Amino acid sequence: MTIGSLQQSLASFAAERDWEQFHTPKNLAMALTGECGELVEIFQWLTPDESTTVMDDPVRAARVREEMADVFAYLLRMADVLELDLERALADKIEVNRGKYPAHLARGRADKYTQLGG
Amino acid sequence: MTIGSLQQSLASFAAERDWEQFHTPKNLAMALTGECGELVEIFQWLTPDESTTVMDDPVRAARVREEMADVFAYLLRMADVLELDLERALADKIEVNRGKYPAHLARGRADKYTQLGG
Amino acid sequence: MTIGSLQQSLASFAAERDWEQFHTPKNLAMALTGECGELVEIFQWLTPDESTTVMDDPVRAARVREEMADVFAYLLRMADVLELDLERALADKIEVNRGKYPAHLARGRADKYTQLGG
Amino acid sequence: MTIGSLQQSLASFAAERDWEQFHTPKNLAMALTGECGELVEIFQWLTPDESTTVMDDPVRAARVREEMADVFAYLLRMADVLELDLERALADKIEVNRGKYPAHLARGRADKYTQLGG
Repeated sequence: MTIGSLQQSLASFAAERDWEQFHTPKNLAMALTGECGELVEIFQWLTPDESTTVMDDPVRAARVREEMADVFAYLLRMADVLELDLERALADKIEVNRGKYPAHLARGRADKYTQLGG
Repeated sequence: MTIGSLQQSLASFAAERDWEQFHTPKNLAMALTGECGELVEIFQWLTPDESTTVMDDPVRAARVREEMADVFAYLLRMADVLELDLERALADKIEVNRGKYPAHLARGRADKYTQLGG
Repeated sequence: MTIGSLQQSLASFAAERDWEQFHTPKNLAMALTGECGELVEIFQWLTPDESTTVMDDPVRAARVREEMADVFAYLLRMADVLELDLERALADKIEVNRGKYPAHLARGRADKYTQLGG
Repeated sequence: MTIGSLQQSLASFAAERDWEQFHTPKNLAMALTGECGELVEIFQWLTPDESTTVMDDPVRAARVREEMADVFAYLLRMADVLELDLERALADKIEVNRGKYPAHLARGRADKYTQLGG
């Protein structure tokens, strides 16, 4: 399974149901957000420690897996509709962030790069 | 660039900065949501039609690309921390959805599967 | 019903169930986001025009009302826990925005204030 | 400052700038979500304990106040556009939740009402 073949599956799924009319970037951004909201709900009352073992509970693990798949689906679909190469975009972003967050300045700090000094 | 190698880059990036302490699933779910919020802001005042040509404007295109990369980054990082196979999860979800949304019932309808009858 | 009395009701509700332990600002921010996600889901496939008549459908109207109440509940609860005067904060923000968005520059434009020139 | 007078201020602000065209319920739901995302970002790397003292830092306190005001603004504006009485909706919701979450069953538990048994 590659990103490209998953996007192809999602595109066929939409085309077979005449759903392309709904899949504008605006609507897909909303759908992505809605799925993120469902994912967040699973974690909202857990402590950070509890969240690290969430997959030990089969019921919760299945929900996490399903919601993350939904987020991924809308993200891939949106990238496809926008003709945006998501893997390339992320690889580029990681490079940019290497410059913004030098390891010796950012070590152990959750600050934004604008606050790192240097 | 595969999902696995991007996850490896993100893991190294975090390890080099001693950021693993911040990357609990709970915190990553929040970060994912925050990035989705930034993505949605680009589209909030656009009409659906305007949203389909958002990539024609280089300034907006760069913002969309960057925010989608951020969403993707936190999604991949979260999957890695949870040891969850995102591509497998999505492939499985598409199969489940084929059963929930039969093409002949779902055609042209944006309803939830519970409302499709059949 | 005032904001203060609603906050008092929400505080009692939480106290009676020993839920104060869960109501940290971090957790409440997550819960707020989760409810926003459910609200967005109602609107994601609607056109902007369809969204303006969403209250004509009694089933959808009830969902909108319920999700907006949930968003409001977590927002009020969070403000209460942070001892933040939400009405004062908003009144102040409106004043600030009068300066950022002069009517003669912002008329009919959905741009951020940094792009308004002047 | 009451909800009604704040909504009146927000409506005038929009009318003076000819922004009513942008304020469809769909768009306002997106804007609300975007502001929630900015609020969540403040808390994403904080521990729950750190989040309880977020207002002790004047810089962070100002950001929290501003983002919560923005969330409140779009929630009030959306309720106004939908002609929905937010205070009544919340008061009703609290009553419904008293039935769903009996204190003796829900005490100290962050479970959904469907899991409370009883």
